Amino acid sequence: MKVGILGGGQLARMIALAGYPLGLQFVVLDPDEHAGAGGLSEHLHGAYDDPDLLAQLAEKADVVTYEFENVPAHVAEFLSSHTTVYPPANALAVAQDRLVEKNFFNDLGIGTAPYAAVDNLHDLQDAMPNIGFPAILKSRRMGYDGKGQMVLKSTDDLAAAWQAMQGAPSIVEGFVSFQREVSIIAARRPSGDIVFYPLSENQHSGGILRLATACTNDAEQAMAEDYVRRLLEKLDYVGVIALELFDVDGQLLANEFAPRVHNSGHWTIEGSETSQFENHLRAILDLPLGSTQTRGFAAMINFIGGLPQTQELLNLSHVHCHLYDKAPRKGRKVAHATLRTDDAEVFTQTLAKVSALAQRVDQS
Amino acid sequence: MKVGILGGGQLARMIALAGYPLGLQFVVLDPDEHAGAGGLSEHLHGAYDDPDLLAQLAEKADVVTYEFENVPAHVAEFLSSHTTVYPPANALAVAQDRLVEKNFFNDLGIGTAPYAAVDNLHDLQDAMPNIGFPAILKSRRMGYDGKGQMVLKSTDDLAAAWQAMQGAPSIVEGFVSFQREVSIIAARRPSGDIVFYPLSENQHSGGILRLATACTNDAEQAMAEDYVRRLLEKLDYVGVIALELFDVDGQLLANEFAPRVHNSGHWTIEGSETSQFENHLRAILDLPLGSTQTRGFAAMINFIGGLPQTQELLNLSHVHCHLYDKAPRKGRKVAHATLRTDDAEVFTQTLAKVSALAQRVDQS
Repeated sequence: MKVGILGGGQLARMIALAGYPLGLQFVVLDPDEHAGAGGLSEHLHGAYDDPDLLAQLAEKADVVTYEFENVPAHVAEFLSSHTTVYPPANALAVAQDRLVEKNFFNDLGIGTAPYAAVDNLHDLQDAMPNIGFPAILKSRRMGYDGKGQMVLKSTDDLAAAWQAMQGAPSIVEGFVSFQREVSIIAARRPSGDIVFYPLSENQHSGGILRLATACTNDAEQAMAEDYVRRLLEKLDYVGVIALELFDVDGQLLANEFAPRVHNSGHWTIEGSETSQFENHLRAILDLPLGSTQTRGFAAMINFIGGLPQTQELLNLSHVHCHLYDKAPRKGRKVAHATLRTDDAEVFTQTLAKVSALAQRVDQS
Repeated sequence: MKVGILGGGQLARMIALAGYPLGLQFVVLDPDEHAGAGGLSEHLHGAYDDPDLLAQLAEKADVVTYEFENVPAHVAEFLSSHTTVYPPANALAVAQDRLVEKNFFNDLGIGTAPYAAVDNLHDLQDAMPNIGFPAILKSRRMGYDGKGQMVLKSTDDLAAAWQAMQGAPSIVEGFVSFQREVSIIAARRPSGDIVFYPLSENQHSGGILRLATACTNDAEQAMAEDYVRRLLEKLDYVGVIALELFDVDGQLLANEFAPRVHNSGHWTIEGSETSQFENHLRAILDLPLGSTQTRGFAAMINFIGGLPQTQELLNLSHVHCHLYDKAPRKGRKVAHATLRTDDAEVFTQTLAKVSALAQRVDQS
């Protein structure tokens, strides 16, 4: 069986590494000549919407998946008409538009921060009395890692913020005073079987995920599973999904979901009986889903823009390196480390050491 | 960094899968067009002793290793004179000759079964009063998985057995009445640092390994570590080594060693904090060695000559698939499964199920 992947970066790389033991082969489509999954797969080198390459991808692959959600609708449509594509195109459509996504959450009875559609400065001005300050103005489409977002602290900020959006259809969201950010990762097969990973508690800085920690036996696990199950079933979803949530006094508000494997689930490679990458493959190939049982204490630390010496990381017992074969560049995720141990004290001490290493080399 | 591997089969495949997260790239030399590591590496396609390909391998790789011990001496010599080769050539020389190997064990104070060199029928006849029946006649070189071996039950068997050796320098070994076969896997860095895995208890059938089970806190662990340490230090060894031992009433007798990653260590992928494959790479790259701590109960089951449906295996919780991308053929190892769980009862029950699957498809 050959799996096609739109995108050949670190997510495709980790999907391929999880897939070889299952006897799978891979073909990726990526414009980057040095795509991180390139050495692990057949690499179709060109634009994501190149019709010839898409036709080749559809021809070569038994099933096509993707490592990013901003797949143009016509690309998903083309691929779907020629081969099996998972997750389904409707999940992409919802995830690509923050307004549609927020409405979707609310229609499913899942709370969100207050929000309003903004198509012009008047919309923004009208919305603010209900939304309140501080708030955040975001383009409805194509944002990630904090890009395309403007913070609004008072009415003085509105005009400049709207101008910065350059007329893009937008959404304004109220800030939520949350205790923590968490995400839940789940996988669903075509048959409807679902497995859930334990919550991950996530720390962002500058809009970029820095640390994700596995939360075994979390008090909000059941609520998060209920919410993500509603998404999966409504979308008749197949594959891995990640739902990001704010924990506000024990109530969970949905932030956004990603129809793909997710950075906050990277600790599952060593921290879970079956990783999110393997379960994504099992799901899209309609194979039995693997146990999501956690192995002890686990966390993932991102390296942004710079890398320590491999030796420094491997000197720390219980630390596993994941380099992405990407040239360091400001703000770019170039690697992560997983920390896994059965000992709570070792976990805390080692986490501090790895975090210090990550901060030392940080270029974000 | 680029690692070169002589041989591109399942061991090279699992070395490469362990190496990508460390940011490594791979080049393999293998005559098989469909070498299992081919998709994961640059594949130099041709004979192991092709001078042009060896020169390319030495040129491309920062360090060269191998997945089999029968590397011709002049190949190891050529590579060593052009690049770094680990494990060292002297380990190959010892492991390639059963007589040299047995003498080596005894010189290090490590017991073996009784043995004698056999260069002609007279040698064999002279040796048998001391060796006793039953015994086994083996060519000194190039045997694996029970090939090139003749069982001797009485003096009537001697002439035919010697004839079957076709004049090859041989060794006759007495049978050992052992309680179990075990192996110990260890890794050593150039600096001299060594890590040891827990003993693996191994079950063979027809000369082929079928089942390897991790033995945590084994009574013979210390003795096995002492023995393998003597080997490693005497050989100034770098990389992973596997030492096969017979347990005879609590005394360990050396059978043979393999200067490479070993089938009896495949359970370390899921069963250990760091796999034998990753520690082999860490060792030959002079990186800190990873923890060999075992995670719960772990075992490896080989699939010989045939494969069950992936679905059947993945239906069993706690079971991990490792397919080698090899066409099934009688007697050929085509895959293994790892079973890992914290629950002793689940372990026993699931092991029986996987073993039954392996027996059902067995073609050996």
